[in-house]
Amino acid sequence: MTKIGFIGLGIMGGPMAANLVQAGFEVTGYNRSAAKVDKLVEAGGRGAGSVAEAVADADVVITMLPDSPDVEAVVLGEDGVLAHAGDGTLLIDCSTIRPDVSREIAGRIRALDAPVSGGEQGAIEGTLSIMVGGAAADFAAARAVLDAVGSTVVHVGAAGAGQTVKAANQLIVAGTIELVAESLVFLEAHDVDTEAAIKVLAGGLAGNRILDRKAAAMIRREFTPGFRVELHDKDLGIVQAAAREAGVVIPLGAVVSQLMASLKAQGHGRLDHGALIELVARLSGRE
Amino acid sequence: MTKIGFIGLGIMGGPMAANLVQAGFEVTGYNRSAAKVDKLVEAGGRGAGSVAEAVADADVVITMLPDSPDVEAVVLGEDGVLAHAGDGTLLIDCSTIRPDVSREIAGRIRALDAPVSGGEQGAIEGTLSIMVGGAAADFAAARAVLDAVGSTVVHVGAAGAGQTVKAANQLIVAGTIELVAESLVFLEAHDVDTEAAIKVLAGGLAGNRILDRKAAAMIRREFTPGFRVELHDKDLGIVQAAAREAGVVIPLGAVVSQLMASLKAQGHGRLDHGALIELVARLSGRE
Amino acid sequence: MTKIGFIGLGIMGGPMAANLVQAGFEVTGYNRSAAKVDKLVEAGGRGAGSVAEAVADADVVITMLPDSPDVEAVVLGEDGVLAHAGDGTLLIDCSTIRPDVSREIAGRIRALDAPVSGGEQGAIEGTLSIMVGGAAADFAAARAVLDAVGSTVVHVGAAGAGQTVKAANQLIVAGTIELVAESLVFLEAHDVDTEAAIKVLAGGLAGNRILDRKAAAMIRREFTPGFRVELHDKDLGIVQAAAREAGVVIPLGAVVSQLMASLKAQGHGRLDHGALIELVARLSGRE
Amino acid sequence: MTKIGFIGLGIMGGPMAANLVQAGFEVTGYNRSAAKVDKLVEAGGRGAGSVAEAVADADVVITMLPDSPDVEAVVLGEDGVLAHAGDGTLLIDCSTIRPDVSREIAGRIRALDAPVSGGEQGAIEGTLSIMVGGAAADFAAARAVLDAVGSTVVHVGAAGAGQTVKAANQLIVAGTIELVAESLVFLEAHDVDTEAAIKVLAGGLAGNRILDRKAAAMIRREFTPGFRVELHDKDLGIVQAAAREAGVVIPLGAVVSQLMASLKAQGHGRLDHGALIELVARLSGRE
Repeated sequence: MTKIGFIGLGIMGGPMAANLVQAGFEVTGYNRSAAKVDKLVEAGGRGAGSVAEAVADADVVITMLPDSPDVEAVVLGEDGVLAHAGDGTLLIDCSTIRPDVSREIAGRIRALDAPVSGGEQGAIEGTLSIMVGGAAADFAAARAVLDAVGSTVVHVGAAGAGQTVKAANQLIVAGTIELVAESLVFLEAHDVDTEAAIKVLAGGLAGNRILDRKAAAMIRREFTPGFRVELHDKDLGIVQAAAREAGVVIPLGAVVSQLMASLKAQGHGRLDHGALIELVARLSGRE
Repeated sequence: MTKIGFIGLGIMGGPMAANLVQAGFEVTGYNRSAAKVDKLVEAGGRGAGSVAEAVADADVVITMLPDSPDVEAVVLGEDGVLAHAGDGTLLIDCSTIRPDVSREIAGRIRALDAPVSGGEQGAIEGTLSIMVGGAAADFAAARAVLDAVGSTVVHVGAAGAGQTVKAANQLIVAGTIELVAESLVFLEAHDVDTEAAIKVLAGGLAGNRILDRKAAAMIRREFTPGFRVELHDKDLGIVQAAAREAGVVIPLGAVVSQLMASLKAQGHGRLDHGALIELVARLSGRE
Repeated sequence: MTKIGFIGLGIMGGPMAANLVQAGFEVTGYNRSAAKVDKLVEAGGRGAGSVAEAVADADVVITMLPDSPDVEAVVLGEDGVLAHAGDGTLLIDCSTIRPDVSREIAGRIRALDAPVSGGEQGAIEGTLSIMVGGAAADFAAARAVLDAVGSTVVHVGAAGAGQTVKAANQLIVAGTIELVAESLVFLEAHDVDTEAAIKVLAGGLAGNRILDRKAAAMIRREFTPGFRVELHDKDLGIVQAAAREAGVVIPLGAVVSQLMASLKAQGHGRLDHGALIELVARLSGRE
Repeated sequence: MTKIGFIGLGIMGGPMAANLVQAGFEVTGYNRSAAKVDKLVEAGGRGAGSVAEAVADADVVITMLPDSPDVEAVVLGEDGVLAHAGDGTLLIDCSTIRPDVSREIAGRIRALDAPVSGGEQGAIEGTLSIMVGGAAADFAAARAVLDAVGSTVVHVGAAGAGQTVKAANQLIVAGTIELVAESLVFLEAHDVDTEAAIKVLAGGLAGNRILDRKAAAMIRREFTPGFRVELHDKDLGIVQAAAREAGVVIPLGAVVSQLMASLKAQGHGRLDHGALIELVARLSGRE
């Protein structure tokens, strides 16, 4: 049976680890705050007091951490995965980080970058979309593990490719929220029934997941996350850097990045990213 | 049985009129080029030699015309619908035009504005999305007719509201195509497998109808319309004017309007609007 | 001696008419509010009770009015210039209006479009920049009159060309204010001495008239007009329409138009256009 | 007499060092390619075979290098300024680099950041604008040296402030070139006499250094540098990173950065930055 070391048992990592236990894997988890580890133990996993302990016997190590420096520290740092995992251990990094960091890690240890989309709900339900970069053989080896946490699992290219696709994902999501926000404020200003409008917009070529899942809350100006503005702002920083590096021009990406950064600068970093509608309404003198 | 006069038997109007015949309505059609009229007659409708003849006995008149001046001429002009239709005739204008023109017409004649989304395919299949503005009683009276050509038929508000929602629809569609274009060029530049990427993007919060229906052709750089750049450019002109009139700020709308206008200015007005990917690729030095 | 009929004795027109009197012209002025006419009489001009009276004996008629519809009414309307001026009278329209309206007027009456730049101060000092469209012979005939109110008087092309250059002027001015606003907020956020920075920026390739004349007030957040946001917003509407008509792509123009429209939508239409710095500061969470 | 060690004798550094010799300073210069050193010797300076040799006896060390990593290597590297300069030596770094790198250097060695504006011509004539960050006492000590190479020398704040003001300078310059480019293409499309238009635009509130010095070449589509697109693109990267770090929203800055990046991506990195007019013309279908 595959033994999994799982580092990072937060909002996403916690339920993912639980789903792996549920699927029959032997999961040893580590998290900086011990309370999260206890929760995994309750769910049938094992607890570890350090990264070293979590990865010592593991066939597969999964990391689910906030940002690039966290992954670098946990994987490449003194007491990290590279130092303590056995030869041939496969690292699956599910964090959303810079593609160049994923490539660097893949040069040092057998690894896949496997960022996810689908939010807390997708993590709990095990229905995440997972975009995977790395060697085809490693993807094949990881398949059973990934299928236990996601329902759309796709190999998209070499090391770093998963992060690149995740960056594209975050560009489309931010842009679509902003397009829906502009449209809803436009319709409100023209006294159109926005609830009815959402229905008919969702039925045609304008249809998208934001209209399906977020537009109703945006109309009510409810911004409980969900996905926070400050995280999306971080991700758009990755998008811009990666576009710049490759000489790709992204006019809408550049503008929506300014708007997301503005929300954060105005102190709304902890709201759901649907709060872009607040910004459009304010710019239009409608508050 | 409801008698329908149908003006404008082009790419969209032709199959819509045929579907109405199929549904059992008595349809008398008129079009400037007689060949289109002959096609309706073959499908079981009647032909008329003028607007006057088409609308003389009609209970309902449907217009499906290219732009605001066309609708003004056909409805309000000397030999037009207003002059020749009987009292109580209901006009259903399915054209995409300026909301203020729809409101003006509704002040002169009993009318609904009922622009559609779904393209030639939706017109043929009778699965159009139809966004309807006007009086609730008139919407109720028109329901059976509209159900014969569309599968999502929604009353969104007073006269002009249908056009306003259609404007929002065109804003979201143009913006989404551009977001997908920026993402695909970004992925191509990073040597990611774009076919695989589309699959995983479509499965998460980034999912939208453009990824489902247009992205594959955009990757192959196939731009047979579909919906032409020059028409989308016209519609974005309506969006900008209506946003300006209402004091609504649409940053992404403004930028994507520039890009669509650029495609047209460069002589690509007759391509499908998916050609935005060509523009992004060229701006990124990738051709 | 040249007899001048002057219509529109507001903030700009009043001092221009006074300068013409000063230069020895016989000026008969008309304005809707009689108080402005009295002021011209005090300055040595004559007062008229109607457009007809003002233009009856005039060799040259000057109009200085707020917007396109005003000019159309005063020039082409029932009791307007066209109806009452003698044959061969030369109209010099100094208003900032749509180029197509200027061209239409020039098709009906001997006319120059001659919009000005330089503000109230330039009008008082007689140092306006004047951009003139129309026939070269008419420009030559008008030269002495124009030199009495402006110090930079340039013939830029056929009818409408003056308005087109004025549109370009308004695009550059709005864009430059916004660039200076972004730079100042950027410097404030980095705790740089902005007064010192203005000095050094003005000395190099970044030097411009906004740094010279407006940046100090922008730093102090003083927005007494000057030139009002709502008028600049109107002018940017002309810019966008004229760019669209000619298929010219203006990415910065499109974005700064959104920002100026936002200021107006937020109720700041009567502030000086330097208030763009307030908007940038607010977007950056610095208020 | 003040002894100066000068590192980096390129297009800018060469004439600056020559002006210092002219002003009576004892200048020892070093450059990777020896030919540049020979040129300084011809002008009356001394040549050095290494950084160490150039700075050994110096009271003041001036660096004029392409980018942040170059400055880090030359100043902080193994055989660099820090390792070989005497105690109390004052470093004046005239390179345009990241503000955070300037601050880091100022934490290790007595230093001023003193980027310049004015181009090759300004360097030759000794009329550069110099924006200086660092301690007031150090600025006072450096004053005589800086006055020998520049005509506008301003202390703008603490360490890094010079770079921050230079970043703002580059933002305004890029934006102004683009505004002039959009205006010129707009005027060309409307058949206006652009040479005449430049004159009248330069006389009013739209007046700026780009209209004075670059617009004529832009009209002729002459793009011999001057200042290269690829360097301006690098500088706009600094602007964006510094704005992001401080939470400052720069909508025009973001868009013009995309356009400059596009020029570079299309292979025009070695043209003068006035080539933005080519991009606007191409986007407008006018080539």
